[in-house]
Amino acid sequence: MITSEIFYNILYAHTDKMGVVYYSKYLEFFEAGRNDILKKIGYPYSKLEEKNYALPVIEVSCKYHNYARYDDLIKIKTIINDIPAVRFKLEYEITCDEKKIVTGYTVHSFVNMQKIKPVKPPEDFIVCLRKFI
Amino acid sequence: MITSEIFYNILYAHTDKMGVVYYSKYLEFFEAGRNDILKKIGYPYSKLEEKNYALPVIEVSCKYHNYARYDDLIKIKTIINDIPAVRFKLEYEITCDEKKIVTGYTVHSFVNMQKIKPVKPPEDFIVCLRKFI
Amino acid sequence: MITSEIFYNILYAHTDKMGVVYYSKYLEFFEAGRNDILKKIGYPYSKLEEKNYALPVIEVSCKYHNYARYDDLIKIKTIINDIPAVRFKLEYEITCDEKKIVTGYTVHSFVNMQKIKPVKPPEDFIVCLRKFI
Amino acid sequence: MITSEIFYNILYAHTDKMGVVYYSKYLEFFEAGRNDILKKIGYPYSKLEEKNYALPVIEVSCKYHNYARYDDLIKIKTIINDIPAVRFKLEYEITCDEKKIVTGYTVHSFVNMQKIKPVKPPEDFIVCLRKFI
Repeated sequence: MITSEIFYNILYAHTDKMGVVYYSKYLEFFEAGRNDILKKIGYPYSKLEEKNYALPVIEVSCKYHNYARYDDLIKIKTIINDIPAVRFKLEYEITCDEKKIVTGYTVHSFVNMQKIKPVKPPEDFIVCLRKFI
Repeated sequence: MITSEIFYNILYAHTDKMGVVYYSKYLEFFEAGRNDILKKIGYPYSKLEEKNYALPVIEVSCKYHNYARYDDLIKIKTIINDIPAVRFKLEYEITCDEKKIVTGYTVHSFVNMQKIKPVKPPEDFIVCLRKFI
Repeated sequence: MITSEIFYNILYAHTDKMGVVYYSKYLEFFEAGRNDILKKIGYPYSKLEEKNYALPVIEVSCKYHNYARYDDLIKIKTIINDIPAVRFKLEYEITCDEKKIVTGYTVHSFVNMQKIKPVKPPEDFIVCLRKFI
Repeated sequence: MITSEIFYNILYAHTDKMGVVYYSKYLEFFEAGRNDILKKIGYPYSKLEEKNYALPVIEVSCKYHNYARYDDLIKIKTIINDIPAVRFKLEYEITCDEKKIVTGYTVHSFVNMQKIKPVKPPEDFIVCLRKFI
């Protein structure tokens, strides 16, 4: 298992008229976590792009447990549990002061941008992951 | 079953550098569909608010089947299958020229904003739904 | 002078915790108006793209006169006053029930995407504009 | 003059299909800078809220000099030059590796949220500012 943790400060831009973070914003926070964990394993997303790979999302699931509010400092924990085959799953736990806010996961497909079709992940990506899993 | 359909024109604002609609934007399109279907049954969300109810989301699920792109005219179909008890589920199908783009659902909880606790939906809301289901 | 008018229904997604539309969202509404007026003159933005032109923004100005709120139906009026040389200016007036909400303008540069440098607008674009101005 | 600097990592969420940051996103980065400089002077925005003040924006101006791209680490510099009377002006310079990306300013009005009318800033806010200006 690999995990990474980043922190984000909630802006007015993230909130809605109920005074809490609007539900779609958590998917942006998931992306921030995803970028961070890929850097942590030594394979930033930009390196995937350079090799003509992309990781389009094919599935998202979120459970909303509590509200995050303006000026909250949320912690975005990202987790990779398994070496991906064609599909790549990441899990997320967003908390604020130990209180669980949102949990969820995204599933991505490795795609070759020249052929525009699903492919296996690059060999060196798996090598990077294997150092941790 | 109740359904509603609205159309939305994709802006640059919705796209990301992969040239397709960014994955969180579909949750905004879901909200647009949700607002529309509540108006269609004669119980707009603003009426819920006036009565001190809110419908915070507690769960989201999305499957991404195809990409929507700039200037696409997407169709957002929203579906209510069941009379809600405490939890209220809505389903969504986003298509473009008959091509399935995203499907998903949201689950909401009825909340009394004064007591800030989950409650049953207002009686007249159920009456409105029963005309269709 | 050319003008176009479109309508937009305010979502929770557009609001912030003050209960009004967040200030950056109006720039998305400006884009919606821009897309519409270009279609109206018979030269949609996608046609510019096909010819390898882009219209990156180089300047924005907004004045906020009143608040738009959830479920408001805003009117986005877009205005082109002048035939562009290298720079292309569009003006916007966002109103709700005749009440002025936001006024502003954007200035864009015509750019050739292959040379990535500012250029004059395509000849047939000017021809389309001249039918109106 | 007071200045603050924060850094932000560009996500896919911020980009559009031209591969660069979408023009409205900079207004969110301005807000992040605004929050930061208010904390720096010892008067966070949440303190204004507690005292029933708000700072709605009444004017925005942006000039776009260069593009920021995915994964860029941008620096948001926020500047307060003057002690506000009723109107409060903040200036912003967004750079990436010393390259100027966007410059702009916002003008805000102090508003009493109970009376919903423009007022002078709270006395202790001015005291905080005077330590720096």
